[in-house]
Amino acid sequence: MKINFSKCRSVLITGANRGLGLQMVRQLLDSPNRPQKIIATARDPAAAKELQELAKSHPNVHVLPLDVTSDSSVDAAAQSVESIVGTDGLNCLINNAAINIPCELDTVTRDAMMKTYESNTVAPLFVTKAFLPLLRRAAAQGSDMGIQRAAVINVSSLLGSVQLNWGEVGSFKFYAYRASKSALNMVTRCLAVDLEAEKILCVALHPGWVRTDMGGSMAPLSKEESISSVLSVISGLTEKHHGGFVDYTGESLPW
Amino acid sequence: MKINFSKCRSVLITGANRGLGLQMVRQLLDSPNRPQKIIATARDPAAAKELQELAKSHPNVHVLPLDVTSDSSVDAAAQSVESIVGTDGLNCLINNAAINIPCELDTVTRDAMMKTYESNTVAPLFVTKAFLPLLRRAAAQGSDMGIQRAAVINVSSLLGSVQLNWGEVGSFKFYAYRASKSALNMVTRCLAVDLEAEKILCVALHPGWVRTDMGGSMAPLSKEESISSVLSVISGLTEKHHGGFVDYTGESLPW
Repeated sequence: MKINFSKCRSVLITGANRGLGLQMVRQLLDSPNRPQKIIATARDPAAAKELQELAKSHPNVHVLPLDVTSDSSVDAAAQSVESIVGTDGLNCLINNAAINIPCELDTVTRDAMMKTYESNTVAPLFVTKAFLPLLRRAAAQGSDMGIQRAAVINVSSLLGSVQLNWGEVGSFKFYAYRASKSALNMVTRCLAVDLEAEKILCVALHPGWVRTDMGGSMAPLSKEESISSVLSVISGLTEKHHGGFVDYTGESLPW
Repeated sequence: MKINFSKCRSVLITGANRGLGLQMVRQLLDSPNRPQKIIATARDPAAAKELQELAKSHPNVHVLPLDVTSDSSVDAAAQSVESIVGTDGLNCLINNAAINIPCELDTVTRDAMMKTYESNTVAPLFVTKAFLPLLRRAAAQGSDMGIQRAAVINVSSLLGSVQLNWGEVGSFKFYAYRASKSALNMVTRCLAVDLEAEKILCVALHPGWVRTDMGGSMAPLSKEESISSVLSVISGLTEKHHGGFVDYTGESLPW
């Protein structure tokens, strides 16, 4: 597998100011088979120094403000993206923005549960709804299913697998994060059911446990290792993956 | 299988004012092997006429106000329950209260997603946390795992199975409800991991598709059919079911 976005004209990545989102922008730019347009969103682009640096030297990177929890922000971003992608529409939406409020049984609060769900589950659904007209425009151009047509990639987590929440993996408690990612998996599957007829690919993707601000220093994977695998897997998505839950090696995960 | 709560001294059922919750109270009372104490909660007991009627003629039914989304209401209920169950503790907590705001891709709102999650996912977790001291008190008395010891039954749904959300079952859209029940399954599994050492049984249970206000008139099962099966399944729960997802026939469901 290798990174190949050459037939994907446009990619939008949320939460691109740091961590895995920023790394995706970086490695897409480093690839000889990069997409024509990379739209990188952040809640506060002015504070996203590294992203702004990348955009300065790469005119195919478009940085936009996007607070995924705000309807008005999402609508404004969709309008901006329409003017960037035009009649081509949007080929690939990567819902990457997410939060983790570490909490165990003793420390979890209602507020932590609600805020995490709002960002990690509800926001990807409403970002996808807002960009659907542009995804449909791209899908109408008739390519085979995949990122050359139209795709929604929801960045999920192994910790969202109910089945695998046992034994060693069960030692990662994170009630709020886990519940939000299980629910995101369900939202992904609902979208897959609804967008099947238009052949808009929908998948949930586990990027691995990565040394980021969120993943912490104990994680086995570097950002580079994770994202080169993740972008390769995204490059190779086909109708076989539609409605599925895959990890950064391309393997299926149980729900 | 038959209904046998004779070794279960106390059961608490949330959302017992109507639908499946009320039916559970009714059929527990009809059973020769009923529990000693049935604690039936409702957000507004004054409006729960049928439940009040049952309580009038059955002194072992205790009706309590409980708004599962309110910490102060949950704490007050836990205090009342302590005075009812005393040193025996609470053997069986059935988190039944839930809402469904029907919504498809076109009609779903952020508010519907959030409200449904608050009631169907977050509330069962915080009700369980509030009653944990009483469940632990019951568990400390040393019975085998099951409702004679201490058990948390989260009323989930087939619609919370990500795996089964495809084909015919996929035609039931309900984004908000589905996502909340997938997340409830995860919460159930998290609780099972954390309460394993104390042998407090935790399961997610699908009661079938039932002709209630929520299930509608097209559903194949009557309330009587569902609840006689559900109560039989609950009667027979053992350590084998801990952390699992079972339906009203006792079969395991995929997550």
